[in-house]
Amino acid sequence: MSDAQASLKLQAAHACFGGAQRFYEHFSSQIGLAMKFSVFLPPKAVEGEKVPALLYLAGLTCTEETFMTKAGAQRLAASLNVALVTCDTSPRGAGLPGEAQSWDFGVGAGFYLDATAKPWALHWRMESYIVDDLLPLLGAKLPIDLQRLGIFGHSMGGHGALTLALRHPGVFKSVSAFAPIANPINCPWGQKAFAGYLGDNQAEWAQHDATALMAAQKQPPYPAGILIDQGLADKFLLEKQLLPEAFEAACAQIGQPLTLRRHGGYDHGYYFIQSFIDEHLRFHVSQL
Amino acid sequence: MSDAQASLKLQAAHACFGGAQRFYEHFSSQIGLAMKFSVFLPPKAVEGEKVPALLYLAGLTCTEETFMTKAGAQRLAASLNVALVTCDTSPRGAGLPGEAQSWDFGVGAGFYLDATAKPWALHWRMESYIVDDLLPLLGAKLPIDLQRLGIFGHSMGGHGALTLALRHPGVFKSVSAFAPIANPINCPWGQKAFAGYLGDNQAEWAQHDATALMAAQKQPPYPAGILIDQGLADKFLLEKQLLPEAFEAACAQIGQPLTLRRHGGYDHGYYFIQSFIDEHLRFHVSQL
Repeated sequence: MSDAQASLKLQAAHACFGGAQRFYEHFSSQIGLAMKFSVFLPPKAVEGEKVPALLYLAGLTCTEETFMTKAGAQRLAASLNVALVTCDTSPRGAGLPGEAQSWDFGVGAGFYLDATAKPWALHWRMESYIVDDLLPLLGAKLPIDLQRLGIFGHSMGGHGALTLALRHPGVFKSVSAFAPIANPINCPWGQKAFAGYLGDNQAEWAQHDATALMAAQKQPPYPAGILIDQGLADKFLLEKQLLPEAFEAACAQIGQPLTLRRHGGYDHGYYFIQSFIDEHLRFHVSQL
Repeated sequence: MSDAQASLKLQAAHACFGGAQRFYEHFSSQIGLAMKFSVFLPPKAVEGEKVPALLYLAGLTCTEETFMTKAGAQRLAASLNVALVTCDTSPRGAGLPGEAQSWDFGVGAGFYLDATAKPWALHWRMESYIVDDLLPLLGAKLPIDLQRLGIFGHSMGGHGALTLALRHPGVFKSVSAFAPIANPINCPWGQKAFAGYLGDNQAEWAQHDATALMAAQKQPPYPAGILIDQGLADKFLLEKQLLPEAFEAACAQIGQPLTLRRHGGYDHGYYFIQSFIDEHLRFHVSQL
Protein backbone atom coordinates (compact mmCIF):
# COMPACT_ATOMS: atom_id res chain seq x y z
CA MET A 1 0.00 0.00 0.00
CA SER A 2 1.33 3.45 -0.92
CA ASP A 3 1.90 6.25 1.58
CA ALA A 4 -1.05 8.06 0.02
CA GLN A 5 -3.35 5.12 0.65
CA ALA A 6 -2.05 4.28 4.12
CA SER A 7 -2.44 7.87 5.30
CA LEU A 8 -5.97 8.42 3.99
CA LYS A 9 -8.22 10.07 6.58
CA LEU A 10 -11.89 10.93 6.28
CA GLN A 11 -12.28 14.48 7.60
CA ALA A 12 -16.00 15.08 7.03
CA ALA A 13 -18.99 13.33 5.50
CA HIS A 14 -22.45 14.63 4.63
CA ALA A 15 -25.48 12.78 3.32
CA CYS A 16 -26.46 14.33 -0.01
CA PHE A 17 -29.10 13.18 -2.50
CA GLY A 18 -29.07 9.72 -0.96
CA GLY A 19 -25.31 9.48 -1.53
CA ALA A 20 -22.30 10.76 0.40
CA GLN A 21 -20.28 13.96 0.14
CA ARG A 22 -16.92 13.18 1.70
CA PHE A 23 -13.78 15.23 2.42
CA TYR A 24 -10.47 13.42 2.76
CA GLU A 25 -6.87 14.25 3.62
CA HIS A 26 -3.80 12.13 2.92
CA PHE A 27 -0.04 12.38 2.60
CA SER A 28 1.11 12.72 -1.00
CA SER A 29 4.51 11.24 -1.81
CA GLN A 30 4.61 13.22 -5.05
CA ILE A 31 3.97 16.54 -3.32
CA GLY A 32 5.73 15.75 -0.07
CA LEU A 33 2.90 17.31 1.93
CA ALA A 34 -0.65 16.54 3.05
CA MET A 35 -3.27 17.03 0.33
CA LYS A 36 -7.05 17.24 0.49
CA PHE A 37 -9.68 16.00 -1.91
CA SER A 38 -13.43 15.54 -1.96
CA VAL A 39 -15.64 12.80 -3.38
CA PHE A 40 -19.36 12.64 -4.00
CA LEU A 41 -20.50 9.03 -4.13
CA PRO A 42 -23.92 8.28 -5.61
CA PRO A 43 -26.23 6.04 -3.55
CA LYS A 44 -25.20 2.77 -5.23
CA ALA A 45 -21.51 3.49 -4.61
CA VAL A 46 -22.24 4.04 -0.93
CA GLU A 47 -23.71 0.54 -1.01
CA GLY A 48 -20.42 -0.73 -2.46
CA GLU A 49 -20.99 -0.83 -6.23
CA LYS A 50 -18.00 0.31 -8.32
CA VAL A 51 -19.06 3.34 -10.34
CA PRO A 52 -17.51 5.57 -13.01
CA ALA A 53 -16.11 8.91 -11.84
CA LEU A 54 -15.53 12.42 -13.12
CA LEU A 55 -12.45 14.28 -11.90
CA TYR A 56 -13.08 18.03 -11.77
CA LEU A 57 -10.15 20.46 -11.64
CA ALA A 58 -10.94 23.90 -10.22
CA GLY A 59 -9.64 27.34 -11.14
CA LEU A 60 -7.31 29.89 -9.55
CA THR A 61 -7.85 30.50 -5.80
CA CYS A 62 -10.26 27.56 -5.45
CA THR A 63 -9.98 24.44 -3.28
CA GLU A 64 -11.36 20.90 -3.32
CA GLU A 65 -14.53 22.34 -1.78
CA THR A 66 -15.48 24.96 -4.38
CA PHE A 67 -17.11 22.77 -6.99
CA MET A 68 -18.87 20.58 -4.43
CA THR A 69 -20.41 23.65 -2.79
CA LYS A 70 -21.26 25.78 -5.79
CA ALA A 71 -21.78 23.73 -8.95
CA GLY A 72 -25.01 21.92 -8.07
CA ALA A 73 -23.72 18.71 -9.67
CA GLN A 74 -24.66 16.14 -7.04
CA ARG A 75 -28.36 15.92 -7.92
CA LEU A 76 -27.79 14.57 -11.42
CA ALA A 77 -24.64 12.63 -10.45
CA ALA A 78 -26.74 10.70 -7.92
CA SER A 79 -29.29 9.91 -10.58
CA LEU A 80 -26.71 9.02 -13.27
CA ASN A 81 -24.78 6.83 -10.80
CA VAL A 82 -21.45 8.59 -11.32
CA ALA A 83 -18.97 9.73 -8.66
CA LEU A 84 -17.50 13.25 -8.61
CA VAL A 85 -13.94 13.89 -7.44
CA THR A 86 -12.25 17.23 -6.77
CA CYS A 87 -8.71 17.95 -5.61
CA ASP A 88 -7.01 21.09 -4.38
CA THR A 89 -5.44 23.59 -6.80
CA SER A 90 -1.90 23.49 -5.38
CA PRO A 91 0.20 22.25 -2.49
CA ARG A 92 -0.39 24.14 0.75
CA GLY A 93 1.91 24.61 3.70
CA ALA A 94 5.22 24.28 1.85
CA GLY A 95 6.36 27.62 3.25
CA LEU A 96 8.20 28.76 0.13
CA PRO A 97 9.07 32.47 0.06
CA GLY A 98 6.28 34.43 -1.59
CA GLU A 99 4.12 31.35 -2.23
CA ALA A 100 0.92 33.17 -1.22
CA GLN A 101 1.73 36.65 -2.53
CA SER A 102 -0.09 36.28 -5.87
CA TRP A 103 -3.56 34.95 -6.50
CA ASP A 104 -2.47 33.64 -9.91
CA PHE A 105 0.82 31.93 -8.97
CA GLY A 106 1.93 29.70 -6.09
CA VAL A 107 -0.70 28.68 -3.52
CA GLY A 108 -4.06 28.05 -5.19
CA ALA A 109 -2.46 28.26 -8.63
CA GLY A 110 -0.60 25.01 -9.33
CA PHE A 111 -1.62 24.84 -12.99
CA TYR A 112 -1.76 21.01 -12.85
CA LEU A 113 1.84 20.48 -13.95
CA ASP A 114 5.13 19.38 -12.36
CA ALA A 115 7.35 22.38 -11.81
CA THR A 116 10.97 21.99 -12.93
CA ALA A 117 12.30 25.36 -11.80
CA LYS A 118 13.53 26.11 -8.26
CA PRO A 119 12.16 26.46 -5.65
CA TRP A 120 8.83 25.13 -6.95
CA ALA A 121 10.07 21.79 -8.30
CA LEU A 122 10.22 20.20 -4.87
CA HIS A 123 6.49 20.39 -4.02
CA TRP A 124 4.58 21.87 -6.98
CA ARG A 125 3.96 18.53 -8.72
CA MET A 126 0.20 18.58 -9.28
CA GLU A 127 0.29 16.47 -12.46
CA SER A 128 2.17 13.59 -10.82
CA TYR A 129 0.05 14.03 -7.72
CA ILE A 130 -3.13 13.48 -9.69
CA VAL A 131 -1.92 10.68 -11.94
CA ASP A 132 0.37 8.77 -9.57
CA ASP A 133 -1.08 9.44 -6.10
CA LEU A 134 -4.73 10.44 -6.32
CA LEU A 135 -6.06 8.17 -9.07
CA PRO A 136 -4.51 4.95 -7.68
CA LEU A 137 -5.80 5.91 -4.25
CA LEU A 138 -9.34 6.35 -5.64
CA GLY A 139 -9.17 2.93 -7.25
CA ALA A 140 -7.78 1.21 -4.17
CA LYS A 141 -9.78 2.84 -1.39
CA LEU A 142 -13.07 3.97 -2.91
CA PRO A 143 -15.75 2.23 -5.01
CA ILE A 144 -14.50 3.91 -8.19
CA ASP A 145 -13.82 2.12 -11.48
CA LEU A 146 -10.56 3.55 -12.87
CA GLN A 147 -11.43 2.18 -16.32
CA ARG A 148 -14.36 4.63 -16.48
CA LEU A 149 -12.86 8.03 -15.68
CA GLY A 150 -13.72 11.36 -17.26
CA ILE A 151 -11.99 14.68 -16.58
CA PHE A 152 -13.26 18.24 -16.70
CA GLY A 153 -12.48 21.58 -15.15
CA HIS A 154 -12.90 25.33 -15.09
CA SER A 155 -10.49 28.10 -16.15
CA MET A 156 -7.04 26.98 -14.86
CA GLY A 157 -8.75 23.64 -14.22
CA GLY A 158 -10.04 23.59 -17.79
CA HIS A 159 -6.41 23.94 -18.88
CA GLY A 160 -5.61 21.09 -16.49
CA ALA A 161 -8.37 18.87 -17.83
CA LEU A 162 -7.45 19.40 -21.48
CA THR A 163 -3.69 18.99 -20.95
CA LEU A 164 -3.90 15.94 -18.67
CA ALA A 165 -6.35 14.33 -21.09
CA LEU A 166 -3.89 14.89 -23.94
CA ARG A 167 -0.71 14.00 -22.00
CA HIS A 168 -2.06 10.74 -20.53
CA PRO A 169 -3.79 8.85 -23.35
CA GLY A 170 -6.17 6.17 -22.17
CA VAL A 171 -6.41 7.37 -18.57
CA PHE A 172 -9.48 9.53 -19.19
CA LYS A 173 -12.25 8.34 -21.51
CA SER A 174 -13.92 11.74 -21.87
CA VAL A 175 -12.95 15.39 -21.46
CA SER A 176 -14.80 18.70 -21.24
CA ALA A 177 -14.16 22.19 -19.87
CA PHE A 178 -15.78 25.43 -18.74
CA ALA A 179 -13.98 28.57 -19.91
CA PRO A 180 -10.55 26.89 -20.02
CA ILE A 181 -7.21 28.68 -20.25
CA ALA A 182 -6.84 27.02 -23.62
CA ASN A 183 -3.57 28.47 -24.86
CA PRO A 184 -1.54 29.47 -21.77
CA ILE A 185 1.73 30.08 -23.62
CA ASN A 186 0.01 33.01 -25.31
CA CYS A 187 -1.77 34.64 -22.34
CA PRO A 188 -0.50 36.60 -19.30
CA TRP A 189 -1.67 34.06 -16.68
CA GLY A 190 0.00 31.18 -18.47
CA GLN A 191 3.19 33.05 -19.28
CA LYS A 192 3.63 34.08 -15.63
CA ALA A 193 2.93 30.56 -14.36
CA PHE A 194 5.03 28.71 -16.92
CA ALA A 195 7.99 31.07 -16.52
CA GLY A 196 7.85 30.55 -12.76
CA TYR A 197 7.27 26.81 -12.74
CA LEU A 198 9.16 25.74 -15.90
CA GLY A 199 11.79 28.42 -16.49
CA ASP A 200 12.45 29.77 -19.95
CA ASN A 201 12.51 26.56 -21.99
CA GLN A 202 9.73 27.27 -24.51
CA ALA A 203 9.69 23.66 -25.76
CA GLU A 204 8.75 22.57 -22.26
CA TRP A 205 6.00 25.19 -22.11
CA ALA A 206 4.39 23.73 -25.23
CA GLN A 207 4.13 20.35 -23.51
CA HIS A 208 1.61 21.91 -21.09
CA ASP A 209 -0.39 24.00 -23.54
CA ALA A 210 -3.69 22.44 -24.69
CA THR A 211 -3.58 24.17 -28.06
CA ALA A 212 0.03 23.20 -28.80
CA LEU A 213 -0.58 19.64 -27.60
CA MET A 214 -3.67 19.29 -29.79
CA ALA A 215 -1.90 20.72 -32.84
CA ALA A 216 0.84 18.11 -32.40
CA GLN A 217 -1.55 15.11 -32.45
CA LYS A 218 -1.31 12.73 -35.41
CA GLN A 219 -4.97 11.74 -35.15
CA PRO A 220 -7.95 12.91 -33.09
CA PRO A 221 -7.34 11.72 -29.52
CA TYR A 222 -11.00 11.98 -28.50
CA PRO A 223 -12.94 10.88 -31.58
CA ALA A 224 -16.26 11.07 -29.68
CA GLY A 225 -15.66 14.79 -29.26
CA ILE A 226 -14.67 17.38 -26.66
CA LEU A 227 -17.20 19.76 -25.07
CA ILE A 228 -16.32 23.33 -24.05
CA ASP A 229 -18.74 25.97 -22.73
CA GLN A 230 -17.66 29.60 -22.77
CA GLY A 231 -19.57 32.67 -21.59
CA LEU A 232 -19.35 35.70 -23.83
CA ALA A 233 -19.58 38.17 -20.90
CA ASP A 234 -16.55 36.50 -19.27
CA LYS A 235 -14.10 39.31 -18.56
CA PHE A 236 -11.15 36.94 -18.81
CA LEU A 237 -12.26 35.97 -22.32
CA LEU A 238 -12.34 39.66 -23.21
CA GLU A 239 -8.87 40.12 -21.64
CA LYS A 240 -7.56 37.28 -23.84
CA GLN A 241 -6.58 35.01 -20.94
CA LEU A 242 -8.64 32.07 -22.27
CA LEU A 243 -8.21 32.00 -26.07
CA PRO A 244 -10.68 29.20 -26.89
CA GLU A 245 -10.46 30.16 -30.56
CA ALA A 246 -6.83 28.99 -30.62
CA PHE A 247 -7.82 25.57 -29.28
CA GLU A 248 -10.73 25.47 -31.73
CA ALA A 249 -8.33 26.08 -34.62
CA ALA A 250 -5.95 23.35 -33.41
CA CYS A 251 -8.85 20.86 -33.19
CA ALA A 252 -9.98 21.80 -36.70
CA GLN A 253 -6.40 21.36 -37.97
CA ILE A 254 -6.13 17.74 -36.87
CA GLY A 255 -9.79 16.81 -37.25
CA GLN A 256 -10.62 16.56 -33.54
CA PRO A 257 -14.40 16.97 -33.09
CA LEU A 258 -15.09 19.88 -30.73
CA THR A 259 -18.35 21.36 -29.52
CA LEU A 260 -17.44 24.89 -28.39
CA ARG A 261 -20.60 26.61 -27.23
CA ARG A 262 -20.49 30.39 -26.82
CA HIS A 263 -23.17 31.64 -24.42
CA GLY A 264 -24.22 35.28 -24.62
CA GLY A 265 -24.44 37.06 -21.26
CA TYR A 266 -22.68 34.44 -19.12
CA ASP A 267 -19.59 35.33 -17.08
CA HIS A 268 -16.71 33.31 -15.59
CA GLY A 269 -18.26 32.18 -12.30
CA TYR A 270 -20.21 29.30 -10.83
CA TYR A 271 -23.60 30.78 -11.80
CA PHE A 272 -22.39 30.06 -15.33
CA ILE A 273 -21.03 26.62 -14.45
CA GLN A 274 -24.18 25.48 -12.64
CA SER A 275 -26.27 26.53 -15.65
CA PHE A 276 -24.55 23.97 -17.87
CA ILE A 277 -23.23 21.37 -15.42
CA ASP A 278 -25.98 18.85 -16.17
CA GLU A 279 -25.07 18.78 -19.85
CA HIS A 280 -21.42 18.10 -18.99
CA LEU A 281 -22.37 15.22 -16.72
CA ARG A 282 -24.53 13.67 -19.44
CA PHE A 283 -21.77 14.25 -22.02
CA HIS A 284 -19.28 12.28 -19.90
CA VAL A 285 -21.55 9.52 -18.71
CA SER A 286 -22.60 8.72 -22.28
CA GLN A 287 -18.92 7.83 -22.94
CA LEU A 288 -18.11 5.94 -19.71
CA MET B 1 -41.05 56.50 -3.49
CA SER B 2 -39.57 55.26 -0.21
CA ASP B 3 -35.95 55.72 0.78
CA ALA B 4 -35.47 52.00 0.29
CA GLN B 5 -36.70 52.20 -3.29
CA ALA B 6 -34.93 55.45 -4.17
CA SER B 7 -31.59 54.15 -2.89
CA LEU B 8 -31.70 50.78 -4.63
CA LYS B 9 -28.40 49.95 -6.36
CA LEU B 10 -27.54 46.88 -8.41
CA GLN B 11 -24.14 45.67 -7.20
CA ALA B 12 -23.65 42.55 -9.34
CA ALA B 13 -25.53 40.50 -11.91
CA HIS B 14 -24.84 37.06 -13.35
CA ALA B 15 -26.62 35.16 -16.09
CA CYS B 16 -27.88 31.88 -14.61
CA PHE B 17 -30.10 29.23 -16.22
CA GLY B 18 -31.32 31.78 -18.75
CA GLY B 19 -32.40 34.11 -15.93
CA ALA B 20 -30.53 36.61 -13.78
CA GLN B 21 -28.83 36.30 -10.41
CA ARG B 22 -28.67 39.83 -9.01
CA PHE B 23 -27.20 41.37 -5.85
CA TYR B 24 -28.61 44.66 -4.61
CA GLU B 25 -27.90 47.18 -1.86
CA HIS B 26 -30.25 49.85 -0.55
CA PHE B 27 -30.83 52.10 2.45
CA SER B 28 -33.36 50.68 4.89
CA SER B 29 -35.40 53.21 6.84
CA GLN B 30 -36.43 50.51 9.29
CA ILE B 31 -32.85 49.46 10.04
CA GLY B 32 -31.25 52.87 9.59
CA LEU B 33 -28.37 51.35 7.63
CA ALA B 34 -27.62 49.96 4.20
CA MET B 35 -28.90 46.41 3.62
CA LYS B 36 -28.14 43.86 0.93
CA PHE B 37 -30.37 41.32 -0.74
CA SER B 38 -30.22 38.99 -3.71
CA VAL B 39 -32.80 38.00 -6.30
CA PHE B 40 -32.86 35.22 -8.85
CA LEU B 41 -35.23 36.09 -11.67
CA PRO B 42 -36.37 33.30 -14.00
CA PRO B 43 -36.06 33.98 -17.75
CA LYS B 44 -39.62 35.28 -18.19
CA ALA B 45 -39.18 37.76 -15.34
CA VAL B 46 -36.03 39.10 -17.01
CA GLU B 47 -38.26 39.72 -20.02
CA GLY B 48 -40.61 41.72 -17.78
CA GLU B 49 -43.34 39.24 -16.77
CA LYS B 50 -44.48 39.54 -13.14
CA VAL B 51 -43.77 36.25 -11.41
CA PRO B 52 -44.42 34.73 -7.97
CA ALA B 53 -41.50 34.74 -5.53
CA LEU B 54 -40.15 32.75 -2.62
CA LEU B 55 -38.42 34.63 0.19
CA TYR B 56 -35.71 32.49 1.79
CA LEU B 57 -34.36 33.38 5.24
CA ALA B 58 -30.91 32.03 6.07
CA GLY B 59 -29.41 30.74 9.30
CA LEU B 60 -26.87 31.99 11.82
CA THR B 61 -23.66 33.46 10.30
CA CYS B 62 -25.07 33.44 6.75
CA THR B 63 -25.64 36.33 4.35
CA GLU B 64 -27.87 37.07 1.37
CA GLU B 65 -25.35 35.11 -0.73
CA THR B 66 -25.33 31.77 1.08
CA PHE B 67 -28.50 30.23 -0.32
CA MET B 68 -27.89 31.53 -3.83
CA THR B 69 -24.41 29.97 -3.86
CA LYS B 70 -25.04 26.67 -2.11
CA ALA B 71 -28.66 25.51 -2.41
CA GLY B 72 -28.81 24.69 -6.11
CA ALA B 73 -32.30 26.18 -6.37
CA GLN B 74 -32.01 28.26 -9.53
CA ARG B 75 -32.29 25.37 -12.01
CA LEU B 76 -35.82 24.42 -10.98
CA ALA B 77 -36.85 28.01 -10.17
CA ALA B 78 -36.03 28.95 -13.77
CA SER B 79 -38.15 26.11 -15.04
CA LEU B 80 -41.06 26.73 -12.60
CA ASN B 81 -40.99 30.47 -13.40
CA VAL B 82 -40.64 31.59 -9.79
CA ALA B 83 -38.26 34.22 -8.40
CA LEU B 84 -36.05 33.57 -5.36
CA VAL B 85 -35.24 36.33 -2.86
CA THR B 86 -32.72 36.26 0.00
CA CYS B 87 -31.87 38.96 2.51
CA ASP B 88 -29.08 39.31 5.05
CA THR B 89 -29.36 37.82 8.54
CA SER B 90 -28.87 41.05 10.50
CA PRO B 91 -27.89 44.68 10.19
CA ARG B 92 -24.18 45.21 9.57
CA GLY B 93 -22.02 48.21 10.35
CA ALA B 94 -24.03 49.55 13.29
CA GLY B 95 -20.91 49.53 15.44
CA LEU B 96 -22.66 48.46 18.66
CA PRO B 97 -20.31 47.27 21.42
CA GLY B 98 -19.81 43.51 21.15
CA GLU B 99 -22.07 43.15 18.10
CA ALA B 100 -19.69 40.70 16.40
CA GLN B 101 -18.38 38.85 19.47
CA SER B 102 -20.83 35.91 19.23
CA TRP B 103 -21.73 33.83 16.21
CA ASP B 104 -25.24 33.28 17.59
CA PHE B 105 -26.13 36.84 18.65
CA GLY B 106 -25.70 40.27 17.07
CA VAL B 107 -24.17 40.43 13.58
CA GLY B 108 -25.35 37.52 11.44
CA ALA B 109 -27.93 36.55 14.06
CA GLY B 110 -30.87 38.96 13.85
CA PHE B 111 -33.53 36.29 14.45
CA TYR B 112 -35.98 38.10 12.13
CA LEU B 113 -37.62 40.16 14.88
CA ASP B 114 -37.65 43.79 16.01
CA ALA B 115 -35.52 44.18 19.12
CA THR B 116 -37.09 46.16 21.95
CA ALA B 117 -34.14 46.10 24.39
CA LYS B 118 -31.26 48.57 24.31
CA PRO B 119 -28.93 48.96 22.49
CA TRP B 120 -30.33 46.61 19.83
CA ALA B 121 -33.74 48.27 19.38
CA LEU B 122 -32.32 51.07 17.24
CA HIS B 123 -31.09 48.94 14.31
CA TRP B 124 -31.98 45.27 14.92
CA ARG B 125 -35.43 45.46 13.27
CA MET B 126 -35.30 42.59 10.79
CA GLU B 127 -39.05 41.87 10.91
CA SER B 128 -40.06 45.42 9.99
CA TYR B 129 -37.22 45.53 7.49
CA ILE B 130 -38.59 42.53 5.63
CA VAL B 131 -42.28 43.40 5.82
CA ASP B 132 -42.15 47.20 5.46
CA ASP B 133 -38.99 47.86 3.44
CA LEU B 134 -37.98 44.80 1.44
CA LEU B 135 -41.33 43.43 0.27
CA PRO B 136 -42.71 46.79 -0.97
CA LEU B 137 -39.38 47.40 -2.71
CA LEU B 138 -39.62 44.03 -4.49
CA GLY B 139 -43.12 44.85 -5.67
CA ALA B 140 -42.23 48.35 -6.84
CA LYS B 141 -38.84 47.80 -8.45
CA LEU B 142 -38.75 44.19 -9.61
CA PRO B 143 -41.09 42.02 -11.72
CA ILE B 144 -42.43 40.26 -8.63
CA ASP B 145 -46.12 39.72 -7.86
CA LEU B 146 -46.60 40.44 -4.13
CA GLN B 147 -49.91 38.57 -4.19
CA ARG B 148 -48.00 35.34 -4.86
CA LEU B 149 -45.31 35.19 -2.16
CA GLY B 150 -44.10 32.14 -0.30
CA ILE B 151 -41.60 32.09 2.58
CA PHE B 152 -39.11 29.48 3.72
CA GLY B 153 -35.84 29.30 5.56
CA HIS B 154 -33.21 27.27 7.36
CA SER B 155 -32.44 26.97 11.08
CA MET B 156 -32.71 30.56 12.45
CA GLY B 157 -34.26 31.36 9.07
CA GLY B 158 -36.73 28.50 9.50
CA HIS B 159 -37.76 30.16 12.75
CA GLY B 160 -38.06 33.41 10.80
CA ALA B 161 -40.16 31.84 8.05
CA LEU B 162 -42.58 30.15 10.46
CA THR B 163 -42.97 33.16 12.74
CA LEU B 164 -43.35 35.76 9.98
CA ALA B 165 -45.87 33.51 8.23
CA LEU B 166 -47.88 33.29 11.46
CA ARG B 167 -47.48 36.95 12.50
CA HIS B 168 -48.45 38.42 9.11
CA PRO B 169 -51.53 36.55 7.89
CA GLY B 170 -52.18 36.91 4.19
CA VAL B 171 -48.72 38.20 3.29
CA PHE B 172 -47.31 34.77 2.51
CA LYS B 173 -49.42 32.16 0.74
CA SER B 174 -47.18 29.21 1.58
CA VAL B 175 -44.54 28.35 4.18
CA SER B 176 -41.90 25.66 4.62
CA ALA B 177 -38.64 25.19 6.52
CA PHE B 178 -35.42 23.21 6.75
CA ALA B 179 -34.39 22.27 10.27
CA PRO B 180 -36.05 25.32 11.86
CA ILE B 181 -35.47 26.59 15.39
CA ALA B 182 -39.08 25.71 16.04
CA ASN B 183 -39.44 26.53 19.72
CA PRO B 184 -36.78 29.16 20.55
CA ILE B 185 -38.15 30.05 23.99
CA ASN B 186 -37.16 26.54 25.06
CA CYS B 187 -33.67 26.24 23.52
CA PRO B 188 -30.31 27.88 24.37
CA TRP B 189 -29.96 29.78 21.07
CA GLY B 190 -33.43 31.27 21.35
CA GLN B 191 -33.17 32.07 25.04
CA LYS B 192 -29.90 33.93 24.51
CA ALA B 193 -31.25 35.86 21.52
CA PHE B 194 -34.64 36.71 23.01
CA ALA B 195 -33.14 37.79 26.34
CA GLY B 196 -30.75 40.08 24.46
CA TYR B 197 -33.19 41.48 21.93
CA LEU B 198 -36.46 41.47 23.93
CA GLY B 199 -35.42 41.66 27.57
CA ASP B 200 -37.11 39.51 30.18
CA ASN B 201 -40.77 39.91 29.20
CA GLN B 202 -41.74 36.29 28.56
CA ALA B 203 -45.08 37.25 27.00
CA GLU B 204 -43.15 39.12 24.33
CA TRP B 205 -40.90 36.11 23.75
CA ALA B 206 -43.94 33.95 22.98
CA GLN B 207 -44.95 36.36 20.21
CA HIS B 208 -41.81 35.29 18.31
CA ASP B 209 -41.91 31.55 18.98
CA ALA B 210 -43.36 29.42 16.17
CA THR B 211 -44.66 26.76 18.53
CA ALA B 212 -46.34 29.24 20.90
CA LEU B 213 -47.79 31.20 17.98
CA MET B 214 -49.20 28.04 16.40
CA ALA B 215 -50.68 26.82 19.68
CA ALA B 216 -52.50 30.16 20.03
CA GLN B 217 -54.23 29.96 16.62
CA LYS B 218 -58.02 29.59 16.59
CA GLN B 219 -58.00 27.74 13.28
CA PRO B 220 -55.32 26.32 10.97
CA PRO B 221 -53.62 29.33 9.35
CA TYR B 222 -52.21 27.31 6.44
CA PRO B 223 -54.92 24.78 5.61
CA ALA B 224 -52.99 23.53 2.56
CA GLY B 225 -50.24 22.41 4.93
CA ILE B 226 -46.75 23.31 6.10
CA LEU B 227 -43.65 21.38 4.98
CA ILE B 228 -40.62 20.85 7.24
CA ASP B 229 -37.56 18.72 6.46
CA GLN B 230 -35.28 17.68 9.30
CA GLY B 231 -32.09 15.60 9.20
CA LEU B 232 -31.71 13.05 11.95
CA ALA B 233 -27.88 13.38 12.02
CA ASP B 234 -28.24 17.13 12.63
CA LYS B 235 -26.13 17.86 15.72
CA PHE B 236 -28.32 20.83 16.62
CA LEU B 237 -31.37 18.55 16.65
CA LEU B 238 -29.53 16.25 19.04
CA GLU B 239 -28.52 19.26 21.19
CA LYS B 240 -32.22 20.24 21.39
CA GLN B 241 -31.77 23.61 19.69
CA LEU B 242 -34.45 22.88 17.06
CA LEU B 243 -37.31 21.03 18.81
CA PRO B 244 -39.47 20.24 15.76
CA GLU B 245 -41.51 17.86 17.89
CA ALA B 246 -42.83 20.83 19.89
CA PHE B 247 -44.03 22.54 16.72
CA GLU B 248 -45.50 19.25 15.52
CA ALA B 249 -47.50 18.94 18.74
CA ALA B 250 -48.78 22.52 18.44
CA CYS B 251 -49.91 21.88 14.86
CA ALA B 252 -51.68 18.70 15.94
CA GLN B 253 -53.37 20.59 18.79
CA ILE B 254 -55.04 23.12 16.50
CA GLY B 255 -55.46 20.88 13.46
CA GLN B 256 -52.83 22.54 11.26
CA PRO B 257 -51.73 20.05 8.58
CA LEU B 258 -47.95 19.53 8.80
CA THR B 259 -45.64 17.33 6.80
CA LEU B 260 -42.58 16.89 9.00
CA ARG B 261 -40.13 14.61 7.23
CA ARG B 262 -37.30 13.12 9.28
CA HIS B 263 -34.37 12.07 7.10
CA GLY B 264 -31.91 9.51 8.46
CA GLY B 265 -28.24 10.43 8.00
CA TYR B 266 -28.69 14.06 6.97
CA ASP B 267 -27.02 16.87 8.91
CA HIS B 268 -27.68 20.62 9.28
CA GLY B 269 -25.84 21.98 6.23
CA TYR B 270 -26.46 22.86 2.62
CA TYR B 271 -25.73 19.33 1.36
CA PHE B 272 -28.95 18.48 3.22
CA ILE B 273 -30.80 21.52 1.92
CA GLN B 274 -29.84 20.97 -1.71
CA SER B 275 -31.03 17.37 -1.47
CA PHE B 276 -34.61 18.49 -0.80
CA ILE B 277 -34.75 21.99 -2.27
CA ASP B 278 -36.63 20.92 -5.39
CA GLU B 279 -39.47 19.49 -3.32
CA HIS B 280 -39.79 22.75 -1.40
CA LEU B 281 -39.95 24.76 -4.60
CA ARG B 282 -42.69 22.51 -5.99
CA PHE B 283 -44.56 22.64 -2.65
CA HIS B 284 -44.67 26.44 -2.76
CA VAL B 285 -45.36 26.89 -6.45
CA SER B 286 -48.36 24.56 -6.28
CA GLN B 287 -49.91 27.09 -3.86
CA LEU B 288 -48.94 30.35 -5.59
